[in-house]
Amino acid sequence: MKKTKFIEDREQLEKLAPVMKAPIRRHVFVCTGKSCSQVGAADVKKEFERILQEKGIRQGKESKGRNPMGEIVLTECGSVGFCSIGVAVLVYPDGIWYGQVTADDVREIIEKHLENGEIVERLALINIPQ
Amino acid sequence: MKKTKFIEDREQLEKLAPVMKAPIRRHVFVCTGKSCSQVGAADVKKEFERILQEKGIRQGKESKGRNPMGEIVLTECGSVGFCSIGVAVLVYPDGIWYGQVTADDVREIIEKHLENGEIVERLALINIPQ
Repeated sequence: MKKTKFIEDREQLEKLAPVMKAPIRRHVFVCTGKSCSQVGAADVKKEFERILQEKGIRQGKESKGRNPMGEIVLTECGSVGFCSIGVAVLVYPDGIWYGQVTADDVREIIEKHLENGEIVERLALINIPQ
Repeated sequence: MKKTKFIEDREQLEKLAPVMKAPIRRHVFVCTGKSCSQVGAADVKKEFERILQEKGIRQGKESKGRNPMGEIVLTECGSVGFCSIGVAVLVYPDGIWYGQVTADDVREIIEKHLENGEIVERLALINIPQ
């Protein structure tokens, strides 16, 4: 395993991880565990990528078609226990877990929830109190 | 791809996903992307598993040594942009991103932050406002 030196200097850290300077508002996780993958997780993730990048709000490297100052972070994650009711999509820091999400639901989640803070009630199954 | 029928009945959903009934307080993500894996992500994740299960606070199936009514969910996730300053560990809904985490830091994150709500400042690099 690679041993690395602990860096304390904030400026140096920001150069290594520009995401530290982004005005992140929401973090979306799409479960790409085995069961969610069988019901379309890859398509759900691709649709998030497509629409978020089209809107220019996905945080990430410009060379990947993303926005270094984007407000939305999109990441895949492992199983969260929604294996029978996937695809699971989580939105934090709101603490909302969506189940049974298909690619057709993605635009609604982006435009209602990510952009306007309104939960898509028909898909929301868990709401973690803050 | 498997086509599934949309389930509306809450009781049926809870049977399929018992995590819906758990009193979740915090969700920890350990990045297991390529770069974080090179600096010990697997060890960090294992240490979270070990201590959380020893304390009986990790949500999950009893058959896996977890607690169906546990307050902490532990999940792995893909790259979040901390590739040069891993291992990345995220704690939600708090919105805290830790960097440069090693297995030696895990007990402190669990006992200070997950159990007592105090951020481990020396490792915290991003704080997403709620």
